[in-house]
Amino acid sequence: MVAAARELNPSEKLDWLRLIRSENVGPVTFYELLARFGSAAAALEALPELARNAGRRRPLALSTRAAAERELAAVERAGARLVAWGEPDYPGLLAAVEDAPPLLSLRGNAALLRRPAVTVVGARNASANGRRFARDMALQLGGRGLVVVSGLARGIDAAAHQGALPTGTVAVLAGGIDIVYPEENRELYELIAEQGVLLAEMPVGTEPQARHFPRRNRIISGAVLGVLVVEAALRSGSLITARFALEQGREVFAVPGSPLDPRCRGTNDLIRRGATLTETADDVLAEIEAHLTPREAVRPAPRAEAMPPAGPAELALAMARVLEHLSPSPVAVDELIRQCRLPPAMVTAVLLDLELAGRLERQAGQQVALVG
Amino acid sequence: MVAAARELNPSEKLDWLRLIRSENVGPVTFYELLARFGSAAAALEALPELARNAGRRRPLALSTRAAAERELAAVERAGARLVAWGEPDYPGLLAAVEDAPPLLSLRGNAALLRRPAVTVVGARNASANGRRFARDMALQLGGRGLVVVSGLARGIDAAAHQGALPTGTVAVLAGGIDIVYPEENRELYELIAEQGVLLAEMPVGTEPQARHFPRRNRIISGAVLGVLVVEAALRSGSLITARFALEQGREVFAVPGSPLDPRCRGTNDLIRRGATLTETADDVLAEIEAHLTPREAVRPAPRAEAMPPAGPAELALAMARVLEHLSPSPVAVDELIRQCRLPPAMVTAVLLDLELAGRLERQAGQQVALVG
Repeated sequence: MVAAARELNPSEKLDWLRLIRSENVGPVTFYELLARFGSAAAALEALPELARNAGRRRPLALSTRAAAERELAAVERAGARLVAWGEPDYPGLLAAVEDAPPLLSLRGNAALLRRPAVTVVGARNASANGRRFARDMALQLGGRGLVVVSGLARGIDAAAHQGALPTGTVAVLAGGIDIVYPEENRELYELIAEQGVLLAEMPVGTEPQARHFPRRNRIISGAVLGVLVVEAALRSGSLITARFALEQGREVFAVPGSPLDPRCRGTNDLIRRGATLTETADDVLAEIEAHLTPREAVRPAPRAEAMPPAGPAELALAMARVLEHLSPSPVAVDELIRQCRLPPAMVTAVLLDLELAGRLERQAGQQVALVG
Repeated sequence: MVAAARELNPSEKLDWLRLIRSENVGPVTFYELLARFGSAAAALEALPELARNAGRRRPLALSTRAAAERELAAVERAGARLVAWGEPDYPGLLAAVEDAPPLLSLRGNAALLRRPAVTVVGARNASANGRRFARDMALQLGGRGLVVVSGLARGIDAAAHQGALPTGTVAVLAGGIDIVYPEENRELYELIAEQGVLLAEMPVGTEPQARHFPRRNRIISGAVLGVLVVEAALRSGSLITARFALEQGREVFAVPGSPLDPRCRGTNDLIRRGATLTETADDVLAEIEAHLTPREAVRPAPRAEAMPPAGPAELALAMARVLEHLSPSPVAVDELIRQCRLPPAMVTAVLLDLELAGRLERQAGQQVALVG
């Protein structure tokens, strides 16, 4: 089983950091390795052989103890610290998300992370009305005891943080905890560091790149009871956050707008697909009130708790069968298990091997795809 | 049974006109009298005694043949004519509505009434954007073969008529067929008379009063497959039209708007309650396409097709029981039947008697209330 809700000791935390920074180890693989080997240290020891067995020629690049120690020191220099999945300061709702980051950099008032939270996100090129609406809404939601989580982007995100500064706001960064992006929000970044919370999954010093934003958005939606989208064009990042929210079982709220304004197409579309039409804080409260009793964050039990009792020949056959059904188009793991007609634990083991060998990519919604 | 779909002869039409213009005879009573007595002439003959039996002291004011002939002549002078329920020129969908007007004044191109139609209505104090949207939408819906019905009001209604003038538009008036209201829409009124259709339920020469507008709105929604509301405040007339539409089993469409604009509160609220969020003509078409094959207009069979086989004592007891359960607060007829534990036909007969005696008022949604 995965570690219980307790503080890791410094040596354990270092092992967690090494494991998550090792080549081809994403969050899902991380938790599966932890379940299979009992600890990050044991997983690190077993990794090279595991990757070789899965057909990898070049040795797997493991993160070194020295590199992990350097990263820890840099985190501290940035005024932050690392919290591990399951530790008391780790956001409770986020812990229940399948691919929750095993480690987060945290700067600020961690107590806010124990309060119920909602997300307010939206267009960077928001209208003045949209920004005003986001600020007022964040202010009202804050007044009702909710922490407001957003992404420190221009426009709606920044307005939401500003509105919720007095009551509690959390900014989840796409890059490292020390990287202010966009630069125009530096003052807001500092205010949030003092009065709210900054969170980051990427290593300290990481400049945000395009691929980091969807990863960041899944944290934003995962950490909250509901996601409110204020002004969003079709095919915008805010809609990705809303999609994650649906996959994670969160409530989705959207502010309606004129069909003549392209900045409202995305929110109107969300409403058409079932998001709650939202005009006031009451609309949000009415939906999430049921969740406002504190819930325990419980990670769903990993599917494969132990290695299936299978010999190398059986595993090789299983791998061949799984590879037959994989392609660069993503497929849901559930569907794959059905198609392969193999025990779920065996498919999970094969997928883990393939990922470590760099041949498999995990995507949102428990989907997997063959790498190029 | 009620008359079949054929032209009434002039003498029948005159009797219909006399019956519907007689005291305490509304559309529902009209159809019940027709069902009970077989013709308007027979109903007119039976009415005085019926009203006396129901406890009325003062004789019921029946419309005279002379008055009806004067009205017919005035309709013709206004360039219009009367169409009766069930005649080929009577709007097919409207004919299936419980309280459809037995007679309508009609001016213009009646062929339009045989084509599938939708309604575009909304705020009188609409924004420029709202009016533009309504005009463009009507233009597009017209281009897709739909006739656009509205109420000739300022704002959204006028814009919708303008957009649909080239393809076909119907204005339903709250007053008489010859009364232009508001005066500023006189030019539009004349254009619709030439290129579209004007309809009115009230007698020619009637100036519209507040109570006429909801009656008019039930015709607007009854004559169409769907009602689109463009900009509407809470508690506005357009929402009454939308409520009628739901009661009549019509589709309801609403255009979303900013929560900061009070003119969008009503439409946003409609969407929250299940109306189809509408940004383009395609959104409307997608919902009503299923209905675009011509449907026969069939009036649901009246509940009481004949007088229940009951003696005067039994009827007096039934009347006492019904009166116990009636009050000035409206109650649904179905609910009343349940509460009274009487045969539906007997309750219907008692209600008819009470209405003729001026003691009962029929309201939307098959509800009845005791008068004052």
